[in-house]
Amino acid sequence: NRRNKVLTIDTMNPNVKNVEYAVRGPIVQRAVQIEKELREGVKKPFTEVIKANIGDAHAMGQQPITFFRQVLALCSYPELLKDNMFPEDAKSRARRILQACGGSSLGAYSASQGIDCVRQDVARYIERRDGGVPCDPDNVYLTSGASDGIVTMLKLLVCGEGASKTGVMISIPQYPLYSAALAELGAVQVNYYLNEEKCWSMDLSELERSLAEARKHCNPKVLCIINPGNPTGQVQSRQCIEDVIRFAAKEHLFLMADEVYQDNVYAEGCQFHSFKKVLFELGPQYSNTVELVSFHSTSKCYMGECGFRGGYMEVINMDPEVKAQLIKLVSVRLCPAVPGQALMDLVVNSPQPGEPSYTTFMKERTTTLSLLAEKAKLTEEILNTVPGITCNPVQGAMYSFPNISLPQKAIKEAKALGQAPDMFYCMKMLEETGICLVPGSGFGQKDGTYHFRYGHRSLLKHVITTSLSVKWASIPK
Amino acid sequence: NRRNKVLTIDTMNPNVKNVEYAVRGPIVQRAVQIEKELREGVKKPFTEVIKANIGDAHAMGQQPITFFRQVLALCSYPELLKDNMFPEDAKSRARRILQACGGSSLGAYSASQGIDCVRQDVARYIERRDGGVPCDPDNVYLTSGASDGIVTMLKLLVCGEGASKTGVMISIPQYPLYSAALAELGAVQVNYYLNEEKCWSMDLSELERSLAEARKHCNPKVLCIINPGNPTGQVQSRQCIEDVIRFAAKEHLFLMADEVYQDNVYAEGCQFHSFKKVLFELGPQYSNTVELVSFHSTSKCYMGECGFRGGYMEVINMDPEVKAQLIKLVSVRLCPAVPGQALMDLVVNSPQPGEPSYTTFMKERTTTLSLLAEKAKLTEEILNTVPGITCNPVQGAMYSFPNISLPQKAIKEAKALGQAPDMFYCMKMLEETGICLVPGSGFGQKDGTYHFRYGHRSLLKHVITTSLSVKWASIPK
Repeated sequence: NRRNKVLTIDTMNPNVKNVEYAVRGPIVQRAVQIEKELREGVKKPFTEVIKANIGDAHAMGQQPITFFRQVLALCSYPELLKDNMFPEDAKSRARRILQACGGSSLGAYSASQGIDCVRQDVARYIERRDGGVPCDPDNVYLTSGASDGIVTMLKLLVCGEGASKTGVMISIPQYPLYSAALAELGAVQVNYYLNEEKCWSMDLSELERSLAEARKHCNPKVLCIINPGNPTGQVQSRQCIEDVIRFAAKEHLFLMADEVYQDNVYAEGCQFHSFKKVLFELGPQYSNTVELVSFHSTSKCYMGECGFRGGYMEVINMDPEVKAQLIKLVSVRLCPAVPGQALMDLVVNSPQPGEPSYTTFMKERTTTLSLLAEKAKLTEEILNTVPGITCNPVQGAMYSFPNISLPQKAIKEAKALGQAPDMFYCMKMLEETGICLVPGSGFGQKDGTYHFRYGHRSLLKHVITTSLSVKWASIPK
Repeated sequence: NRRNKVLTIDTMNPNVKNVEYAVRGPIVQRAVQIEKELREGVKKPFTEVIKANIGDAHAMGQQPITFFRQVLALCSYPELLKDNMFPEDAKSRARRILQACGGSSLGAYSASQGIDCVRQDVARYIERRDGGVPCDPDNVYLTSGASDGIVTMLKLLVCGEGASKTGVMISIPQYPLYSAALAELGAVQVNYYLNEEKCWSMDLSELERSLAEARKHCNPKVLCIINPGNPTGQVQSRQCIEDVIRFAAKEHLFLMADEVYQDNVYAEGCQFHSFKKVLFELGPQYSNTVELVSFHSTSKCYMGECGFRGGYMEVINMDPEVKAQLIKLVSVRLCPAVPGQALMDLVVNSPQPGEPSYTTFMKERTTTLSLLAEKAKLTEEILNTVPGITCNPVQGAMYSFPNISLPQKAIKEAKALGQAPDMFYCMKMLEETGICLVPGSGFGQKDGTYHFRYGHRSLLKHVITTSLSVKWASIPK
């Protein structure tokens, strides 16, 4: 008897009610049901569900890096340090991590900001990546995946009511963690649209339009960028990053750069430029003033270790008083999981030339990255052969976000069912082919355009060509 | 130049500014500094800092359970399954966990609610613990430690403004995660005082007073209980739990039972009773209506695996629509760290009689629990020998929360420094003896009384007797 409950849909936190998260939304719940039906012997036009909804590398068959897992095993059960089956570099990494843990155990809490020596290794990694731009370990905070860092930063930044409520600029299409976190915090989501015609590039004029619009009804103070893009797969040019930084400086915006796909750059002529490096190359008038936080994680790239929830963020030009508040805030949750911290350390402090694990490590790393590059190219090619589907070149990250032109009849049918047209398309695709996609409406898109996000890891050539064509044919014209 | 920052102490989220978390607060920051000074050769009246501020078992020398760590090593690096050095039961547990992981890897995301088979094992564990009261795995949510679950539940529950703002009743003294989470969410903290004279018991009349008072200015709808108590170490009687449940039913309150110390019960005549079991023993008029969430974790008891951030919560009588919202909410953060989920599984599915690891497991478990019981007893005895200190019997959990009667002169001196008198006491204690305590003011206490929390794990008999006496003597009378 619902009336008697303390906590009901009507009495709960309305901000939580407003949260949407398409990547694990209704279509995924239906996919899980279908998997169950298949196990129970229900006949379907397919034998397995292809989960192209999420970038879950290992679930899709990507193999973990041997060296990482050896060190984690050694850290978990240090008795193995006596064993001869492990290479010396794995043992020395494990000893170093354990020495930095309370009681030499992964089971002790770490400092809330993360283990000291891991933060130092992260700082050195960032310096190498950015051609020597200095990084202070005190600016590095270990997190539970990048999501945790992003939410923590937004928590610090969001305040005010009515017209003075914090506005946060996010790209459309976006990764729905952003919209979900903003809904939960009751902040104002300020959309700027990526330019699909120009390979999902970020246009300065659109940023200006979006900001001017937002200033009429809220206080926009944060600009979020995902580079390489999720779900759109673009890689920002150096020029574009410069423009964005100048724009943020001029407009007094706090920059949040989600750079978790920094190793996933495939297209020729494309290169990853970190916001931090470009910021410092612009000279002290920028590098001493613009507030920037950059996020990275162990979940993507060649590692794909999503389950460990490892990550870090680096804060630049953060007010010292705010830093003290940030440390206090992360203290309440005690610390990020220590195995994830250990893994983050291995990512930023991987085997070096001359060490016994170097050759195997490089081989595994290169194989995975080449396979991902190949899949990115293949996906683009195949999708563009399907009538009605147009896919931009996939320059980086792990997804395609193709445009689908749906016939009016299908759009009508969807609307009659109260579904977004691309949700209708993806649902039919799932029921008829077993491919689980996320509809573009879950990421945001220009009105009247329709898309889906497709995770490359799950690419099986014959599956996608046949099933997409079949599907396409099955939509009433 | 601070004026130019976007994010300053004046523009940040004021709720975050209001958060306090004494367990990792200023005294701990000073302790870390002192450790650094010691390493740099600065002379002190002591050679090491004793961190009695936090229940960090492994950091204080408690040994991990061999079986748990063997399985974690096997799961991390499944090549080890081929090795003969591991017992068969460890291998079969590891295989079972890996089979339940995407791509048979700890590196895949799990379902957001947690791995299916782990939730099933948790459900069976709860049923055994509660003498057969049924537990549905669908009601079990794996979490990143208990803190994560508590914050998630509060997030769902808190809403409203002004007089209709959600009030959350918490014990005073409390574990400061509660006050911190409530400050962050902007909820109203409603204090009910534990009765120090009656061994920190929970009095019905005090609950009634507190609730009546709160109803004048907010909408109290949640009652939080920590049993066994933190920081106060009491173990609630069955009668008391019955009273609390009847009170919650009558007053239409949502119950949150923090039961992370359920294996830490030492005092003779004391026994752990789960809120769920008592709820079901009260009959269907209660067991079908009262909304209850109970929390557990891998961090305390004989495991002490804080660093893995494992935990679960069980929700009882939650509205199905709210459950759907809860699943959506946890989806945004993808999943709790998978190694922590694996560890939680081992805790609820430990070696059984007849399995090869059973004897060692039981020996290790018993040794740790006896040592903790011994330390609890010893702490109480020793503290009560110090003039001016009165310590209640420690019935359970891992801390003492003794009363200190500070001389007027010390209180005056503290106030002149703008410090809480017990913060002044603990700061002096730290500077003079190296013992890091958390002042009672960080947990809350009756006005005019002073306390500190002392973590038993760090007990070294000679240290505490001498240093507490020394300290006492050093306070100006």
